[in-house]
Amino acid sequence: MYETDFIAGSAELAMLLEVSATPKPGNVDRTHDFEDLAYEHFLGSSVGMFPAFRKAASGGHHIGDLILNAVRASATWQRAGNCHFGAILLLIPLCAAASRSSTIDQLRTNVTEVVRGTTTTDAVRFYESFRSVNVRVREQHYLDVNDPESTNTIQKQQLTLFDVMDISSSSDTIAKEWIEGFPRTFRGAELFKQIKESGQNLNESIVHLFLRLLSEAPDTLVAKKFGSKVAHEVSAKATDALKHGNIENLDKELISRRINPGTTADLVIGSLFVTLLGGFRY
Amino acid sequence: MYETDFIAGSAELAMLLEVSATPKPGNVDRTHDFEDLAYEHFLGSSVGMFPAFRKAASGGHHIGDLILNAVRASATWQRAGNCHFGAILLLIPLCAAASRSSTIDQLRTNVTEVVRGTTTTDAVRFYESFRSVNVRVREQHYLDVNDPESTNTIQKQQLTLFDVMDISSSSDTIAKEWIEGFPRTFRGAELFKQIKESGQNLNESIVHLFLRLLSEAPDTLVAKKFGSKVAHEVSAKATDALKHGNIENLDKELISRRINPGTTADLVIGSLFVTLLGGFRY
Repeated sequence: MYETDFIAGSAELAMLLEVSATPKPGNVDRTHDFEDLAYEHFLGSSVGMFPAFRKAASGGHHIGDLILNAVRASATWQRAGNCHFGAILLLIPLCAAASRSSTIDQLRTNVTEVVRGTTTTDAVRFYESFRSVNVRVREQHYLDVNDPESTNTIQKQQLTLFDVMDISSSSDTIAKEWIEGFPRTFRGAELFKQIKESGQNLNESIVHLFLRLLSEAPDTLVAKKFGSKVAHEVSAKATDALKHGNIENLDKELISRRINPGTTADLVIGSLFVTLLGGFRY
Repeated sequence: MYETDFIAGSAELAMLLEVSATPKPGNVDRTHDFEDLAYEHFLGSSVGMFPAFRKAASGGHHIGDLILNAVRASATWQRAGNCHFGAILLLIPLCAAASRSSTIDQLRTNVTEVVRGTTTTDAVRFYESFRSVNVRVREQHYLDVNDPESTNTIQKQQLTLFDVMDISSSSDTIAKEWIEGFPRTFRGAELFKQIKESGQNLNESIVHLFLRLLSEAPDTLVAKKFGSKVAHEVSAKATDALKHGNIENLDKELISRRINPGTTADLVIGSLFVTLLGGFRY
């Protein structure tokens, strides 16, 4: 079985490597901050969440409690709000599944079991997570979390967290990962391996993975903020940047238009977690 | 009492914030790597050591074992050698002392007790730390660690790790911290507070602290590599950069001359640890 600290550390390092990769078009990275959200906030959030990931990785806890716990831990040192909500939704079930896995193949099977085993209480805790802290607008694309009636509906209809994800899986990449068994997370890990083996350094490989995933499907957060047309346009631009290497221009353009493909960044984190857990060293 | 995870996280975040601050003249930072040592190696080393700092922060362990443990944990994901040796020598006793402290004043008293309580076995483990892993040349300025006779001498004369530090404290800033009760570490935390309150952002404040500490005393690592005259020259240049704001020029000059004031960076880490433990949020 994977060891608890190793699982939690893989989750944390995945977040640090992702936010550090530069230039990562449109997102905060080690060379650019947003007005009210700096690179250092991501560092503080990542370190703060280590104990929450270790708890998930020790097994036997409810996914909803673990999500709430991670969201709160994110604010241990940094005060810019939760900048890792999407990543938490991927990493918590992955860490819980890793606690009973010895290989990546087992992780893939177990993470499906973990999300399918969630309860109505998990769904209620998930909604609580939003209300208990300042989840940043960047992340507030999730379901109808701002509707105070949601919790009542969930309890009346006895919806599990898996059911809630199912409802929004057609328009939300992370919900879709839950429903389909994390296919893009695991595929991203395979893609990363290929890219890295082609001779690019670590930073370049992460940027390349981000562009590949972005080029393959419109980013959820961009679609929610700017509509489907812009999201498709951004994916086409990512394809073009991969072909012609004009990544810095794309970065400048997206930043000036305030378009940040945050959900794709979350996917990269999931893929890097699988990569690190699977034995990648550098 | 400070909580175990909070102590260990403060140690890890101190390392991440220090290596991220830019431009930090002559050292690896988020915008420049050395040929065989990249920013990402520092990220991986920091995350890998969290469990080692937690162990120190849980109290009751031998300092020598904790140092050896941290040195090994640094290599969990990154393979560039140990890039945090000096930081470990400051942080391990600080974490151990924090486990029995509730305030920074108590920490100051307790860390003196911790280092004075070290044994001959601690000294032997300390030398073992060097031999068990590839401690980078950057850090190999410590005592006569390359002499295989050292361990025998230590055992024959029953020297403690404190005694070993005492021997080199006249020429080594970190050894001097051990002997004198970590004065520059704690003073750095006070300086950081003043700098931050003067209105500089987090990154600028850390760079400013680095230059202040460098301007006040020659860097041990620079002195060992280039001699005392160059080390004093570098400190004078740091004073000048603080006065005239030409920090980027100093950075370029030191990098081109391969002068890296690594011991001053270690001190900054110690000061940031005290700062974060003491309640700093951002």
